Amino acid sequence: MLIRNYRDVPAIPYPGNIEKRVVIGPTQGAPTFVMRIFDLPPGTASPWHQHDWEHEVFVLAGSGLAISDEGETPVGPGDAIFIPAGEMHSLKNNGQDTFRFMCLVPLRGESTP
Amino acid sequence: MLIRNYRDVPAIPYPGNIEKRVVIGPTQGAPTFVMRIFDLPPGTASPWHQHDWEHEVFVLAGSGLAISDEGETPVGPGDAIFIPAGEMHSLKNNGQDTFRFMCLVPLRGESTP
Repeated sequence: MLIRNYRDVPAIPYPGNIEKRVVIGPTQGAPTFVMRIFDLPPGTASPWHQHDWEHEVFVLAGSGLAISDEGETPVGPGDAIFIPAGEMHSLKNNGQDTFRFMCLVPLRGESTP
Repeated sequence: MLIRNYRDVPAIPYPGNIEKRVVIGPTQGAPTFVMRIFDLPPGTASPWHQHDWEHEVFVLAGSGLAISDEGETPVGPGDAIFIPAGEMHSLKNNGQDTFRFMCLVPLRGESTP
């Protein structure tokens, strides 16, 4: 059993002053999927992109927009978002505070060791 | 893209007045892993058990103990716990409020459709 607070995980800089933390990944022994936490400062957004694997997202703090080809949906703490492989998407901070969410991917979706 | 607040997911009764919510699973299209959220009332604990798949846990609220053969470790919001396949474990509420955590497993670890 390995226990670590996400705040103790070094942040990996991500384009746009976004911080990424790989909380549970292959280095911690994860054999199937990876737990990452993203902090988006006000006004920032993840890239508008798609890839060949799914996201399972859970909003921890702040206020954001979940954006897909179908439009924008406001999201906040307690909201879970499933983004299937191949779907264009972005997550945007539309509030005044940090927009923090967990984003889990299968192993092949995260290159950080 | 599918968005749902975990509070809107019907709770599945679990032994000991524990509530389980399968927030993102096969029914939502998850192909690799399943997001569940557990609410443990004060004084309750998950069974002392092991199985042939891993857990990735993230504490959302309350105060608990992560128990393994190596002992008990206090955990709280922001703590992530990796429990490898085959390791005996239990999570226990040792506080006065609901102990809430996310517990993700590979598909074969969750039988709820």
